[in-house]
Amino acid sequence: MAEGIDVKKGEDLISWYNQVVIKSEMVDFSAIKGFAVYRPYGYEIWERSVQYLDSKFKSVGVRNAYFPLLIPESILSKEKEHIKGFNPEVAWVTMGGDTKLDERLALRPTSETIMYDSYSKWIKSYRDLPLLINQWNTMVRWETKETRLLLRGREVLWQEGHCVFRTEEEADNNAREILQFYKQYMEEMLAIPVIAGRKSESEKFAGAVDTYTIEAVLSNNFMSQAATSHNLGRNFSKPFDIKFLDENNNLQYPFQTSWGISMRSIGIMVLIHGDDKGLVLPPHIAPYQCAIIPILKDEKDKVLEYADKVNLKLNELGIRTILFNRDDVSPGWKLNDSDMKGIPIKIQIGKKELESDSIFVKTRISNEASSIAFSDISKIKDKLEEIQNYMLSNAREQANHRIKEEKSREKFIDQLKNNSYILKSSWCGTPECEDKIKAETGATSRLIPLEEEELISKDCIFCGNKAKFNAYFAKSY
Amino acid sequence: MAEGIDVKKGEDLISWYNQVVIKSEMVDFSAIKGFAVYRPYGYEIWERSVQYLDSKFKSVGVRNAYFPLLIPESILSKEKEHIKGFNPEVAWVTMGGDTKLDERLALRPTSETIMYDSYSKWIKSYRDLPLLINQWNTMVRWETKETRLLLRGREVLWQEGHCVFRTEEEADNNAREILQFYKQYMEEMLAIPVIAGRKSESEKFAGAVDTYTIEAVLSNNFMSQAATSHNLGRNFSKPFDIKFLDENNNLQYPFQTSWGISMRSIGIMVLIHGDDKGLVLPPHIAPYQCAIIPILKDEKDKVLEYADKVNLKLNELGIRTILFNRDDVSPGWKLNDSDMKGIPIKIQIGKKELESDSIFVKTRISNEASSIAFSDISKIKDKLEEIQNYMLSNAREQANHRIKEEKSREKFIDQLKNNSYILKSSWCGTPECEDKIKAETGATSRLIPLEEEELISKDCIFCGNKAKFNAYFAKSY
Repeated sequence: MAEGIDVKKGEDLISWYNQVVIKSEMVDFSAIKGFAVYRPYGYEIWERSVQYLDSKFKSVGVRNAYFPLLIPESILSKEKEHIKGFNPEVAWVTMGGDTKLDERLALRPTSETIMYDSYSKWIKSYRDLPLLINQWNTMVRWETKETRLLLRGREVLWQEGHCVFRTEEEADNNAREILQFYKQYMEEMLAIPVIAGRKSESEKFAGAVDTYTIEAVLSNNFMSQAATSHNLGRNFSKPFDIKFLDENNNLQYPFQTSWGISMRSIGIMVLIHGDDKGLVLPPHIAPYQCAIIPILKDEKDKVLEYADKVNLKLNELGIRTILFNRDDVSPGWKLNDSDMKGIPIKIQIGKKELESDSIFVKTRISNEASSIAFSDISKIKDKLEEIQNYMLSNAREQANHRIKEEKSREKFIDQLKNNSYILKSSWCGTPECEDKIKAETGATSRLIPLEEEELISKDCIFCGNKAKFNAYFAKSY
Repeated sequence: MAEGIDVKKGEDLISWYNQVVIKSEMVDFSAIKGFAVYRPYGYEIWERSVQYLDSKFKSVGVRNAYFPLLIPESILSKEKEHIKGFNPEVAWVTMGGDTKLDERLALRPTSETIMYDSYSKWIKSYRDLPLLINQWNTMVRWETKETRLLLRGREVLWQEGHCVFRTEEEADNNAREILQFYKQYMEEMLAIPVIAGRKSESEKFAGAVDTYTIEAVLSNNFMSQAATSHNLGRNFSKPFDIKFLDENNNLQYPFQTSWGISMRSIGIMVLIHGDDKGLVLPPHIAPYQCAIIPILKDEKDKVLEYADKVNLKLNELGIRTILFNRDDVSPGWKLNDSDMKGIPIKIQIGKKELESDSIFVKTRISNEASSIAFSDISKIKDKLEEIQNYMLSNAREQANHRIKEEKSREKFIDQLKNNSYILKSSWCGTPECEDKIKAETGATSRLIPLEEEELISKDCIFCGNKAKFNAYFAKSY
């Protein structure tokens, strides 16, 4: 049933969000706490994302593989910072059938350790490098914080790329190149502008030299991490004993990267584009780009026949459609259902359209209506592109209004506490200072810009010590 | 390094098999017992399989989704036959972080139970049916028998389809239609002829009314199950309380199917087509259809340039290639490596080919050699199709020689014990008789033909009671 969304986005973002993702049939709760079901409507958005990203990765030589779901505790603990970072949130298998296992097995929270154990067998010579491998799988983290559909769950659909290089420069380039792919995906497919940067010491990945991130701006002035890419240096090649003979026959430790993006990007999309009527999907990612809604009143059979013809023609043009041909609900119900599911364009077809050989078109973003002659039906393609572009530029404008440079310590604390703005300020970057900012404001540093830029002030906004760079601060999901 | 295979297929099938799948870099052992790593060369074969099957499923309206990896014990136990069938081989999560869980969580051995729990919430009316959902994921079964790479592992890459229908007929048709898709995949992609049939009472899926199967014939006169499709009747809709209001407003239990195919199909392909030199891949599934091998002796630069041109041209024709342009190994090494990896066509390019504007072509299946003018290079496409067709018809002929009708009880036992033939005999079909056959011969019934056929004898081959149908008997992996 197309029940509407009965919470306003501006009043209670999280309740609104839960209703939207569940009632649109993207996801659902499951019989197990903290684990979601990804229903066909939501999963198809992920499939389209996978297709886009997979071809980007393959274009630079990355190949897919699959490594075990379970990781013996002894392997998981090999890199010390890494295990420290993950241990509290690992789910453990302790029984196989009726037998207690000798060693506990972790459900992969991420696969660095089990993959690099294999890499140490496979890599012998510089001819084996670069090794560029990705996997599409799920990871399990026993979140103790409240879970949120798509945004934070105990099992997460994602990809994890793990590459090995001869030089530090190659590794760093790879980490940055993949970050650009993630940015392109967010912008071109999801119509979400993101800011790319580096993570602070406290916020970076357990075991990384540098973590790169892309972050999106939400309507409540939170920021949300959409993907990360890590330069691991030789922090893993050493404990995992990955070595290669270079061209001069010297044994060397290689440099590594790992990088990942998850279905959380889709949760962020819902948060940014959705409105009080429900989902709003950018045409490039939408399972259905047009909803065809026949008005089944006068000349029912002929109207249905015409609707079929329109449907077929749109499919021929490569446009994804859904035909709402049920006769047990009203046209109004169908329009609302299409809006709740975020379908970019509604096409109404009744007696009038039949007689004038036209279609009546309304867009989801503005409900702007127009009549198009059947002979001009290919204009729908242009309209979809216009919608896609408008959604990105509009989201960019919204995001820019939410970010402010701040030099005053007092205002910095006050505005972060109250979610008034996302703040950009000069900062010392130390974990101690970050801990105190978090305790006082609830916010953390989200990113440090990739390109060096002029300091907003020479002193750290919070502790007053010498500032090292500018950084963005916000609360986050 | 291209070490050769040093066991003959005819002498020790399993040692030969292990060498082939590991040395060709399809799969590897991992740091965890019974779990394989699927390396890019093997995984790409799976990706191509997924693509083929996924589009077949979607062509009849099936949509993909994703359900949790973990299943609470109380949910897994809801259907009694089902839990009896799986309980001994379930891996259990008992700890989340440092906390002991209140209820044990099973790693999915298959997802009937957790999916149908959701289905019972989603299905209300006949308008919600048919519900056609598939997932691509991995399942975990704590095998106590010796595991075998690709053929029997503790974690298996597969798909599981789960559909719900208003009538028994629709459900049975779906189970049979999907079985045909599996057969087409085996034949068109893997060039493996399979026999379709029904499983016996003892061999059918835990909780099914009927299990349909496709089985392939191996060179040692074993049969191997490549995929199954189950008519579940209402055996799950009742315990899971899945009900719909029919058109007359009566509450009904629907009929269900589940069906799956795994990477084991690829293991079967290796067993059937491989030879003493290694893998033999059918062109439709091969990651590389042609290996281009430049002879880097005279006029090295010009030969390499010509090899690039050939490579580019083949790619333009839609042919997947790999260019062996390393200069630290001999052409002979490259030819052997290409053969071990099962690449269907080798193209040698030296000074002679450069000067005559031609390519020198050898096939993997027969090593038959020929020279082709560069202007005729599109003939490679035809050659690949010829190879694909030949591999299927050759495998079919081989298989037919291995199957024999048998009426004598004594010969039945003797030949099954010694793996002399796969036997087709008349049978009573009872679990008691099947248990005794297994105890005495090591073989089981593999399938009962789908179409009714004349009984080979009116009595059961083994117990002498009245025969109900003919059945195929063999040992199996």
